[in-house]
Amino acid sequence: MSARTAPGLAAFEHVLRETRERVYTVTETVPLDRLTGWRFDENTGFIAHESGRYFSVEGLQVDTQSPPAGWGQPIINQPETGILGFLVKKSDGILRFLTQLKAEPGNRNGLQLSPTVQATKSNYTGVHGGRHVPYLEYFQDPARRRVIADVRQSEQGSRFLRKRNRNMIVETQESVEARDGFVWLTLGQLHELLAIDDLVNMDTRSVLACLPFEDRAPSPGNELHPLEDVLSWITEARTRSDMRVRSVRLDALEDWEFTGGSIGHRTGRHFDVIGVRVEAVGREVGLWCQPMIQNRAPGLLALLVTRVHGLLHVLMQVRTEPGLVDAAELAPTVQCTPDDFDPLPPGERPLFLDLVQNARADRIWFDTTLSDEGGRFYHSGSRHLVVETGWLPEPPEFRWLTLGQLEELTRHSHYLNMQARSALACLRSLIHGGDL
Amino acid sequence: MSARTAPGLAAFEHVLRETRERVYTVTETVPLDRLTGWRFDENTGFIAHESGRYFSVEGLQVDTQSPPAGWGQPIINQPETGILGFLVKKSDGILRFLTQLKAEPGNRNGLQLSPTVQATKSNYTGVHGGRHVPYLEYFQDPARRRVIADVRQSEQGSRFLRKRNRNMIVETQESVEARDGFVWLTLGQLHELLAIDDLVNMDTRSVLACLPFEDRAPSPGNELHPLEDVLSWITEARTRSDMRVRSVRLDALEDWEFTGGSIGHRTGRHFDVIGVRVEAVGREVGLWCQPMIQNRAPGLLALLVTRVHGLLHVLMQVRTEPGLVDAAELAPTVQCTPDDFDPLPPGERPLFLDLVQNARADRIWFDTTLSDEGGRFYHSGSRHLVVETGWLPEPPEFRWLTLGQLEELTRHSHYLNMQARSALACLRSLIHGGDL
Repeated sequence: MSARTAPGLAAFEHVLRETRERVYTVTETVPLDRLTGWRFDENTGFIAHESGRYFSVEGLQVDTQSPPAGWGQPIINQPETGILGFLVKKSDGILRFLTQLKAEPGNRNGLQLSPTVQATKSNYTGVHGGRHVPYLEYFQDPARRRVIADVRQSEQGSRFLRKRNRNMIVETQESVEARDGFVWLTLGQLHELLAIDDLVNMDTRSVLACLPFEDRAPSPGNELHPLEDVLSWITEARTRSDMRVRSVRLDALEDWEFTGGSIGHRTGRHFDVIGVRVEAVGREVGLWCQPMIQNRAPGLLALLVTRVHGLLHVLMQVRTEPGLVDAAELAPTVQCTPDDFDPLPPGERPLFLDLVQNARADRIWFDTTLSDEGGRFYHSGSRHLVVETGWLPEPPEFRWLTLGQLEELTRHSHYLNMQARSALACLRSLIHGGDL
Repeated sequence: MSARTAPGLAAFEHVLRETRERVYTVTETVPLDRLTGWRFDENTGFIAHESGRYFSVEGLQVDTQSPPAGWGQPIINQPETGILGFLVKKSDGILRFLTQLKAEPGNRNGLQLSPTVQATKSNYTGVHGGRHVPYLEYFQDPARRRVIADVRQSEQGSRFLRKRNRNMIVETQESVEARDGFVWLTLGQLHELLAIDDLVNMDTRSVLACLPFEDRAPSPGNELHPLEDVLSWITEARTRSDMRVRSVRLDALEDWEFTGGSIGHRTGRHFDVIGVRVEAVGREVGLWCQPMIQNRAPGLLALLVTRVHGLLHVLMQVRTEPGLVDAAELAPTVQCTPDDFDPLPPGERPLFLDLVQNARADRIWFDTTLSDEGGRFYHSGSRHLVVETGWLPEPPEFRWLTLGQLEELTRHSHYLNMQARSALACLRSLIHGGDL
């Protein structure tokens, strides 16, 4: 292990401060129609890169028979599957995670903590014309690692069209030097850092949620619902879903307008598609332009937890989103943008929103604002809440599940959406240590 | 339990003979362009029902960078998810399956054994104008059953575009009468009947493959590959897949011709899209027309099995198919139409094809021809083989998996393709009884 191993958080904070001075991006907004390398394709009606690569911003028309009856929206289409991978190594009996201090153009605070490898296929096949992706070989060469987790998981289904990333955790026995901009952190350290606003990035949260517990064991049998019933409930929701999506031209989206160099919803809600010009220091490519998503208001992701039969249960909802590959996935108890519902009477607000927003301080286990992925999202994030409650009855779209059940589901694709994985990583950060 | 419970197969065969006289279909081929209710839509280039319902036959263009470099083909698009459901009930400590004797237009021998409910959404929401689907209530009302299995599984990915059916097994405590055309069979009886050519239909095989073993238990730990490695290998194959599909007009498919009232490949291989006129006695609707798929030659589905560390292992391949929702699923060791490869030199024939075709008689555990689903496939089926072998090295696309691992995977969608589930049901029929 190298000198960059951080034995305590004080040492890490020193590395962080020192790296922030050398690795950063300067991002300025640019009108979408003056974005070097990108153009509005008159033929398709999409915004795409001149090379045909990276991603495109497309229109999506969503039709459903149940309310809301249907809507149109811009959505990011990036068909390739990227790798979000943590290289881990055991030393002194403790697992350490090789963490990257990564500056992304959308981060409001510069560096955030990223998995070892966070690479689109374009990155690692050299489409960017960029440099070699460090440590990628551990994720590509089976002989050099033991797989701990390797599963494709969805990105946000309301922003990405059928986008998946490969979430990987691989263990090596080799001696691995932490290069400049990387640091070895224990799981306990990562968990402590999760409580700091906007520090542990979305990809790290996503991958950490896929980490199996060390004592993976047959479930204790006192869950509220056997796993077969949980799977059946998800199958039922997916079968019932009547959401149909089709690609349409951006300029055919009725409620969206191109004004002032960006695309926004006529109500001023939801999100904007903006253009940015990025100058990066200490990153693969020095200068580029790209479209980004800027959410109009912060999101709220909340998990309600309670103890049943002495076992911690989490209230999950099954949620249909237009960009998901398989119609519906599990989402946190509350997943919304509260500002969107602000003038609504209580009966029309999302279930449990008022409950989590008005929770007593001593019931709030976790409360931190964490960013969306800074490569696509500009200054966007969500407040992450974990709130304890007494048992509550389950509305049809909700079930109390155990951490063991959620762990079992994260071994497979398409069960927990990005927001659920992000919130689950926060909840699990409280439990590592075994005091719950 | 009713008088129709079959205590032995002799009684069942009597019921079968007697029902065959009353329940049958008369199917005759009709040119596609003279198919009442169906038309070639000049606008889309698809064959569709005038009501816009049921399913359509569309063109699909498949592009891939790896060989074969790409092709076009007709494919069935039926977006709705049907139910394939077995109602089961324990009596005298033995689980019995309520089996339907069902005549389908494509069956070459009239009746076959179907799950209790085999219904498209059109069926059970009354689009056919048909009668009530018997026993459907057990699959729709959670209060009346215990779920044993409930998982959406793919249909054949080379014939159906992203089609899934909901495979269900539900247990009831209620007293249930076997109506006319239904019979209670034990798992042992169903397994014996699987050895008869073209008797146990495809949907039954698909659902039986999803039945958990009675002694579901933690895996014994002497599998060749830990499950994490198996999942990683599947994730890798899905990530690597570069198959892209897009809908095209049927008349834009270069190698396919409309001649003599059907659509066929210019080489005379693969399959035809034909039209049929069906007259049914003892079925929901008396008379209708529809397109069907007729495979040009019988298929071959073979599983190689061997014992490693005293534990039975099955050689599975991970296989990309254009109609699959998630790029690649597990397929049997051999899945092909042998006639398609007949003039090819051995080096270009599918892996293990020669081995299973030339197996010594005493190594062949199972050898039965079983039909494709008779609602969409006309006189089409595959020889199902289970062949014992010594251990063989694994080509990159193949892995030796245990039955326990395959059972774990069938709890979830999109791991075992239809052919794998069909072959697995045959293999499992040899094992029920615990003598392997």
